[in-house]
Formats: sequence, C-alpha cells, structure tokens
Amino acid sequence: VAQVPVIGVGLIGCGTVGSGVVELLTTMQELYTRRTGKLIQLKRILVRDSAKAAKSLTGRFPSDQITNNPEAFFATPDMPIVIEVAGGKGVVADYVKKALTLRKHVITANKSLLAAEGSELFALARQNNVSIAFEASCGGGIPIMTALQFGLMSNSIQAVYGILNGTCNYILTEMVQKGKPYAVALKEAQEAGFAEADPTLDVSGRDAAQKLAVVASLAFGVDVTDSQVWSEGIDTLDSADIKFGSELGYTIKLLAIGERLDPPTADKPTRLSLRVHPTFVHNSLALAKVNSSFNALSVYGHATGQTLYYGRGAGRLPTASAVVSDLLNVASGWYPSAFSTMRLWCDHHEPVQTLDRAQLISRYYLRMFAKDVPGVMGRLSTILGDAGISISSILQHEIAIGQYVPLVVTTHQASQGQIRQAVTNMESSGVIDGKVTSIRILDLPQG
Amino acid sequence: VAQVPVIGVGLIGCGTVGSGVVELLTTMQELYTRRTGKLIQLKRILVRDSAKAAKSLTGRFPSDQITNNPEAFFATPDMPIVIEVAGGKGVVADYVKKALTLRKHVITANKSLLAAEGSELFALARQNNVSIAFEASCGGGIPIMTALQFGLMSNSIQAVYGILNGTCNYILTEMVQKGKPYAVALKEAQEAGFAEADPTLDVSGRDAAQKLAVVASLAFGVDVTDSQVWSEGIDTLDSADIKFGSELGYTIKLLAIGERLDPPTADKPTRLSLRVHPTFVHNSLALAKVNSSFNALSVYGHATGQTLYYGRGAGRLPTASAVVSDLLNVASGWYPSAFSTMRLWCDHHEPVQTLDRAQLISRYYLRMFAKDVPGVMGRLSTILGDAGISISSILQHEIAIGQYVPLVVTTHQASQGQIRQAVTNMESSGVIDGKVTSIRILDLPQG
Repeated sequence: VAQVPVIGVGLIGCGTVGSGVVELLTTMQELYTRRTGKLIQLKRILVRDSAKAAKSLTGRFPSDQITNNPEAFFATPDMPIVIEVAGGKGVVADYVKKALTLRKHVITANKSLLAAEGSELFALARQNNVSIAFEASCGGGIPIMTALQFGLMSNSIQAVYGILNGTCNYILTEMVQKGKPYAVALKEAQEAGFAEADPTLDVSGRDAAQKLAVVASLAFGVDVTDSQVWSEGIDTLDSADIKFGSELGYTIKLLAIGERLDPPTADKPTRLSLRVHPTFVHNSLALAKVNSSFNALSVYGHATGQTLYYGRGAGRLPTASAVVSDLLNVASGWYPSAFSTMRLWCDHHEPVQTLDRAQLISRYYLRMFAKDVPGVMGRLSTILGDAGISISSILQHEIAIGQYVPLVVTTHQASQGQIRQAVTNMESSGVIDGKVTSIRILDLPQG
Repeated sequence: VAQVPVIGVGLIGCGTVGSGVVELLTTMQELYTRRTGKLIQLKRILVRDSAKAAKSLTGRFPSDQITNNPEAFFATPDMPIVIEVAGGKGVVADYVKKALTLRKHVITANKSLLAAEGSELFALARQNNVSIAFEASCGGGIPIMTALQFGLMSNSIQAVYGILNGTCNYILTEMVQKGKPYAVALKEAQEAGFAEADPTLDVSGRDAAQKLAVVASLAFGVDVTDSQVWSEGIDTLDSADIKFGSELGYTIKLLAIGERLDPPTADKPTRLSLRVHPTFVHNSLALAKVNSSFNALSVYGHATGQTLYYGRGAGRLPTASAVVSDLLNVASGWYPSAFSTMRLWCDHHEPVQTLDRAQLISRYYLRMFAKDVPGVMGRLSTILGDAGISISSILQHEIAIGQYVPLVVTTHQASQGQIRQAVTNMESSGVIDGKVTSIRILDLPQG
C-alpha cells in the first residue's frame, strides 16, 4: 500500500454533535481513507471546559490535545480544516473568522451565524482561497445543501417548503395524533430531550427562520438574513383547531416557506416571500406525513417540478453524518474547487426584496363561536363577500356551547388585509362570541 | 464584462429528453453562465434521422449541425463533453466508448448500459482522465446520485428501497385508488403516454432492476450488474389482493430493494440481497404515499438512519434537469476532479455475493379460497405452524363464493422455502380451492 497523505482537522465544540463527529472519525477511518485517498486525522479540539470534554472522550481522543485555549488551538500545525459545531455567535463567530483568515477550510453546523453573517463569511472565505461547507446547518442528516448546490444546478428554484424544526414537529405530531394540549406536549418533549428547558428559539419559529434564511440564500441565489424572515410560533395553537382541521383533511405543521414572486430576470430585483408559520397541510401531500422529529424540504425547480428530501433533522449521528460528509468532500479536494468556481452562495449582494406580512396572499382557515340562530351564516358570508373573500368549505357541528356553536370556514386565496377586515367585522357583528382564530392553509404551486 | 470561456458540448439522441436538454440550454443560458463561469455551447447533435430532428428543433438549433454521421459528430473540434440520451446498448455503447477514448467527458441517462457495463465504462473513463456523470439514469429529476455520491459520503449504506419505475407506479396507483383491473390500467397508461406499446421492460420489473443495479453499485461500493438482480413483475397482480391489502392497511408498490446482509468488513465479500417485486407497503410509511408517475428512493445510512428522496421519475424537463445539472457540474470542473479523486464507482471488482431468491426472508401476505366449514382455520394454522411460520393477522370475509370464502393470512418473517412448503401443503389439503397467492410485505430496518 502506498503512503496515504495525512490531512489534519481541528474541532471546535464537543457536545452532542461534536462527540458524534469524533465517533464517526474513529470508527469509520478505513472507509473514509478509501473514499478520499487521505488519512483524516483529528488533531486538536477546542472547548470551553476541557476537563469535561476529556472525560467524555476517554479512550477515543488524547486528552492533552483538548484545549480551552484558542491561541493554542489555532497554532496547531498542519491543520488545514476546522470543524465548528459549538453553535451561536459572539466568540464562535470570531473563531470561524479567525480560521478563514488563517486560510483554513471551515465546516460548520451554525445556522444562526450563517443566517446573520453568511455573506460576509463567504466573502472572507473567497478572499482567503478557502471554502465553507455547511450541510449540517439545516435538516440534520438530510443532504439538502448538496441537492440545492449541485443536484438541482440546472433549475431556477421557484419555491421551498420546509419542516425544519424537529422540536416543533414533535410537539405538533403529539398534539395531532394523541390530542394533547400544547402545554402537555411541550412538557413531555422537554422530558424526552426533544425540547430545551427554554424552548423559545424553537417554538417561536425563529430557529426555522434562521434555517430558511440559509436555504433561501442558496435556493434563490440572493443575500438573505434571518431578519428578513417573519415568523409566527406554535405556542398559541389551540388543540380545538387541530381537531377541526383534521376533520377537514388537514394536518398542522410549522412550515418554513420561501417563494419567488416573479420569474427571474436580470434587470429587476428578486422579490421573495419568506416566512415561518403554523400551516394546515392537506393530508394528501407528502409534507403532511412528515412526523415527530423528522424534517423535510420540498423544493420546486422550474425544470424538475417538485422534489422532496426527508430524514432525521437532528440528533447526534445524523447531524455528525452531515458534518463528516462535508469533511470528506473538502478533504478530497473537490468541494473547495466547486466552491471557488461556482457561486454557491451569493456574497455579492444581489438586490432582494422581501414581501411584507400584510401583502401575503393565502388560503385561510377561520374558526369562531357563532350564535345558534337563523341567518347567522348569511350574515358572516356577507361580511366575507364584502371583503372580497370566497368561501371554500364550511364545517358546523351541532353541539352548542351555551348559545354558541363552533363554526369553521375555509377560504380561497385572500390577502392578509382582506382577512383582517373580515375578522374585525365578524368580531363586531354581534353574532359571534369572542375572537376569530385564523390559520393559513398551504397552497402548493402546480407541478 | 470579462470574456467568458466557451465550452463545447455534443448531444447524442434528440427524442423527449434530448429536446428538453436543448430547451434548457437555450432558455437558461444566462443563469448557467453565471453559475459555471463558462459559456456552454451545444455544437453538434447526432441522431438516426437528422431531418426529423431538424424539424423538431426548428428555430432552436441550426439544422446543418444535426448529423446522422458519427464520424462527423466525433470530428467536431472543441467539444470536450458529450451527452448521451439515445438509450440502449449496441451502437450507443460504441458511441459512449468512442467519446471516452477521445477523452471527452460523458453525461448519460442510459441505465441499461450502466447496469450491464458500468464498471468497464468507468475504468475506461479513468484510463482517459475523463469523467462519467449519470444523475439522469435513475429517478429522473431527483438528485439521487448526488446524494449517494456526496451528501451521504460519511455513511456506510445499509439498505435502499426504491419506487423507480413510473409506469408501474402509475398503473398500480390506478389499480389501488380506482379499483381498476391490471389490463384496464395498463391500456389507459398506454393511451395517456405513460406506458410503451410493448410494456414488457417496465411491467416485468427489468427496468427497475437496471436502475437498482446502478443505485446499488454506488450505495454499496461494489460492482453489480443487472443480471444479479432478480425481479417479479406487476402483470400477474389481481385487484382482489390490492383490495384485501388495503383493508389490512397496505398499499401495493413495485419496490426495488437492495440490502446489505452483514456489517461491512474488509476481509469478507459483501453479501447483498438485490431484487424487484410487488410489495405491500404499510400506509404509515412515506413510500406508500408515492403515487402515480412519481419516484422515490429511501436510503438507510449507518449514521443518518433513513433519508428519502422524492420527485418526478421521468418526463421531458425533469430528466433534462438531471442531465443539464450534470453538465453544469462537469463544465465547472469540480465533478471531473471529484470523479478522479474519489472512487465514485467501483471499477476494481470488489467481490460481491448476491442472495438467491430462495434464501430471502420476508413477511408474507397469503390469500386463498377456504372451505366454509368448521375446523378449516385450525387445519391451515397447523400447516403454517409445521413449516415454522407464525401468523401475524387473519382477514376473513363472510361472503362465500360457492362453498368457499376468501381468507387472507399475513405472516411474520419466513423464508421463501418455508412459504413454498406451506403453500404446497395448503393447496393439497383439500380445504382450499385452487392456488394460494403470495405477496411479500415490506419490513424496514430500525431507524
């Protein structure tokens, strides 16, 4: 056997994903050498608490190569690749920039950093003739980035629809399948380790919004940050709506949606609708069947039509799988070549406009408690008609609560403004009790 | 704007997919130049009937560059890439070899050629320092090959389960959803253009077997030809079984299945089970929801667990999308680099053993007409028990046909040999009428 060239790797962060990376590199070395023609050697690990990391890696990695000193870490010789799985911004952002400035390729799972500063990081990488690989930043073990960067290269992407937050999908699946209220499902998700003690980032939709910013930058070839993605969370969902939706053939999902509003042209800025919100998905669609902690992304290309990618969106080995696949692609040399020749990420600030929430056109589910007297339906229909909204279906149960009955109306496409006008008029009409609940319904493109 | 380098391309075949390739290259040139940094120029087209091709491409491509003369085609200067979408073996195989020998990169959609001679072609490409790209050979517009080659690089693949033939899936979907008999569904598929006048290659399962050979070669890193894949077709399916399966919660699919039987080791040959057959898929699984002409491939990696890829498996633009994505990846230079450094296809004849049909272990659905008298169920249970087969469920309708009632039994895992023994004993037991129908039931790995 000829001498195999060694390629040194540094690792920043050694929590769940980091320890999975160490496990894959330790147990699969023979296969990886065969696939890349290189001997990949993990040289040094940078963590906050080196004693804790040393303990968790006992027998797997020499403890004297675990450090909490960034100077020592970056001074490691022959370490042309750095993996960052620490997450967050602040000091971690500094580490990533430091690595790029030192002309090291960076492999990162850090969606919050990419969503905020992606363009700057990509520009810095190109200045230094190195690459950034980020398959693990969205969708865990599903090779979404590989598909968007290479497999769908011939397409102008029209839209993406993603279930990108496993915590929310786990909670919603429990609510749908077992009829649990939100608070119970959340508590159980926390006990099972699927949700953080402070679940705000997940249940508010902001985690999914960060991932959508990363996906949209690639899919639409524009510079998007997560501040351009608006979101509504799952924490205000009522299990009654989940039940009524189910009767109408819908499943509730937290969808991350990116839609191109016009055909692409060179002379006009790209207009996008970018948003995350609870959405009723018809049960006949593949996205409705993505349950529990699984993730999926549906991508509409102008030539492929719909393609869909499905798998485990989080977890130790699935996420480590994406990190290490990136590592092998960088180590073998082809990814840096692709990164430098193709514009994989727009770091040249193409103009982009994002659609305001108020301008969104969507189908809607509206639920209210209506007075159980003759003529009410006529009155409500008139209010909807006056706002220019067409009714698609009506669901009314016979069980009255006091003198009111639950009434559900689904609409054809309407603007947020039209819906707001109709809801205001319904709430002040005197024929309903309390507020009207509105939830958007997914309308997919043809194809 | 700086001068953009031109890269010349030749096209062999100009039917449905070829004309889609011409359309994409004509209408999307600006985007493709931006993505690759090259001006891709279609220089010459080789077809059997150049007058017909010239007519179909009027206004899109100069007719004097369409030829039926392979010598003239291959003599075209500055044409380092050849696309082959003619299909089949024979003379087309010669063209592909000629192109490789002339040191041209080849992009091909030709699964039958790859399934039969893939290893030889890949070795020839490497000898000549060029690459072969073949995303369009399986799954139409779904980037399956990209996922297997790059996105899942860190995984040892344990199993693949594919719906890879759109014609069969269209026919089966019509049978399931509308209760049509096979012959009616086939005839309508032919009239709608979803099935050929001679549908044998599709309905026999051999087309799916060719695709599985290509997928398995990549997924398991071995040299497999389609002669090592056994298949059973959909042409003998009875709509009664589809109805009973549906009552039990199953949908019938023609599945292409590749399973690794042992953990990978360096010293033992890889043992695989490779087969295509009608399979009952439980409705809770994503594969059961892949309908009509859509395709899907479910891939189990040792680190990712299950991932699934879904989209249009055929058609003009979806297949052209895969061809042109390959073209852009080759033209930009990174794919040839990846092809030469990574062992994307095993052309060095790793030893592989494939499991014989008789050794297959599976769950089974068995349907028979049983005598409507006391003690029959006991008798049949005894026959199954004597063969070492455990019953999973029983479905018996009250409607008798003459003195017989339809009886369906599903089993736990059993070998083909055990099932054959039980079926023979049932058929000669005197308590059933005619033959026992058996259909395999999908059992997925954990994960």
